[in-house]
Amino acid sequence: MASTFHLGARDVARIVARKGLSACISGIAARIEQDFLRWPEFDKTSRSASHSREGVIELMPVSDGTRYAFKYVNGHPKNTRFGLPTVMAFGVLADVATGAPLLLAELSLATAIRTAAMSALAARALARRDSRTMALIGNGAQSEFQALAFRDLLGIRRLRLFDTDPRATAKLVRNLRGEGLELDVCTGTREAVRGADIVTTLTADKQRAVILAPDMIEPGMHLNAVGGDCPGKTELHAEVLRRASVFVEYAPQTRVEGELQQMPADFPATEIWRVLAGAHPGRDDAAQVTLFDSVGFALEDFAALRFLEGAARELGIGEPLDLVPSMDDPKDLYGLVAAQPARLAAELVATL
Amino acid sequence: MASTFHLGARDVARIVARKGLSACISGIAARIEQDFLRWPEFDKTSRSASHSREGVIELMPVSDGTRYAFKYVNGHPKNTRFGLPTVMAFGVLADVATGAPLLLAELSLATAIRTAAMSALAARALARRDSRTMALIGNGAQSEFQALAFRDLLGIRRLRLFDTDPRATAKLVRNLRGEGLELDVCTGTREAVRGADIVTTLTADKQRAVILAPDMIEPGMHLNAVGGDCPGKTELHAEVLRRASVFVEYAPQTRVEGELQQMPADFPATEIWRVLAGAHPGRDDAAQVTLFDSVGFALEDFAALRFLEGAARELGIGEPLDLVPSMDDPKDLYGLVAAQPARLAAELVATL
Repeated sequence: MASTFHLGARDVARIVARKGLSACISGIAARIEQDFLRWPEFDKTSRSASHSREGVIELMPVSDGTRYAFKYVNGHPKNTRFGLPTVMAFGVLADVATGAPLLLAELSLATAIRTAAMSALAARALARRDSRTMALIGNGAQSEFQALAFRDLLGIRRLRLFDTDPRATAKLVRNLRGEGLELDVCTGTREAVRGADIVTTLTADKQRAVILAPDMIEPGMHLNAVGGDCPGKTELHAEVLRRASVFVEYAPQTRVEGELQQMPADFPATEIWRVLAGAHPGRDDAAQVTLFDSVGFALEDFAALRFLEGAARELGIGEPLDLVPSMDDPKDLYGLVAAQPARLAAELVATL
Repeated sequence: MASTFHLGARDVARIVARKGLSACISGIAARIEQDFLRWPEFDKTSRSASHSREGVIELMPVSDGTRYAFKYVNGHPKNTRFGLPTVMAFGVLADVATGAPLLLAELSLATAIRTAAMSALAARALARRDSRTMALIGNGAQSEFQALAFRDLLGIRRLRLFDTDPRATAKLVRNLRGEGLELDVCTGTREAVRGADIVTTLTADKQRAVILAPDMIEPGMHLNAVGGDCPGKTELHAEVLRRASVFVEYAPQTRVEGELQQMPADFPATEIWRVLAGAHPGRDDAAQVTLFDSVGFALEDFAALRFLEGAARELGIGEPLDLVPSMDDPKDLYGLVAAQPARLAAELVATL
């Protein structure tokens, strides 16, 4: 019988608290790496996006022939004005053999974790090995996750912080207290970027912005461009892309949504799975500028859902949900309706 | 704060039982008609389909700029062998302005209802007005819904039934007892189709089938072809399409998924919304053969979700679901995790 397991927002927060955020970041990173190493096995497609003036709503499906996953996710930069998160997400893991939805899970928190895990995985393959300082431009909802992922997976020890909203930076500093990171609060992007080994851009405004200008880029830097992730939303000057070696998740999607949208269709870009699999070199030398043009790909959510599924089982968290019908005779859908009067009568009798 | 309302399979069955199936069919038909009359307002796209050997899993999004809806639906013809329905579905209605998911509803039952409602709406615009007899080829899970929709919306009084599985027909006859329909059980498709005003094909096998051959088609017939709805799954001989005037839901999707997949890309087909809106004639004369090449379009699920939303509110059915997080400070996603130890401690104290 079809039975769907449900992990709500509180359940996922409890999983992360019980396992620890660092363990979740590295656990999801390990899952993502495993799945990227078997990249050709997946049925991949660009996400479907519905754009409006206020933001975007996306569906992100992917399948490995055994499990199918999709994520629903929005991006609405002005939501915080109404007391709502900028990004809300949930996802489903289904059985390819029957189409039965097996797991429905909240993914807002998991989206932040898997994005940070993906960024750190890419940086581990692309950044200089002696990288210790990262500039973090944009100190919103995802910034703590990026900070901890780069601390844990790359050994970043010093963060140089800037946000146009000083309260965002103050929140980040408060949240990262006691996490073993040196924090420099900077007065501008230029100051924050200067001398950094890695630069992470994580801004939310839906516009053609120039967060990173060409003259800020120093030899040997790794750029982790996370904020530019839909048509009309970019963070880097086009010249920055021309100076860098560009790596992406899934090229057909990134060419539409990423920083790459500014460039011609044949602008060179390497899918990061090739680097992880050893089929393509990452960094050539210590002076090269590398750029991970991250937009977020369905496979990362597939990995996050698999991780949550395992953690929920291990910890005994979550509940069954009445999502699709269980039927005595699956050829008799009408029986669901026809049986109702009798069921209603039984319920009525039970309450008397 | 984000709060999602949930209608499970039992809730939807209760809504249908409380309102009555006929009222739900006509209510959803009215919603579909209203939405098809404002067709140009919708942001439309072909559904995303992930095919496997066993079946297909699809995501069907659509938006009118105020509400966004999507449906998850599978099609696995062999599922009944494992005690699972062939089709399982659920859907979400979301707020375009914020991306917040407002309603999560079971849609297996609603899919059968909206498909039947759409078929009957199209037939009301295309079939001869004096149609009283319908052949129903394929007597599976959706057949009762088609029978009742055509009785209620077109005045069909007699059904001529055939299925390769006599148990399916016996189930249909049992379920339709007392519904005011004359039922002729036939020994083959040819016998069932002979003399019928309307022919509905509703078979499930994923193959290039020829349920309707050219020599079965009589002048003046309306063909309601429902079963052929994905690449490699058709029910009609190509010559039947050449003899008929073909009407579709959303042409870009039907040309890939419907009976139209057999024809060249420029084969004439009219979107049914034009007929409903009076912008294109339906039937020209009593001898014309009309064909509604139905595959199911996201707008029908949008209408079904809106109907269920209203009915649930009216009847006080359904419960809030913890789908996406409510946050004290929506810019502080990390706070969800950081606050957990304190929350866990409070829970622990509460259980002592």
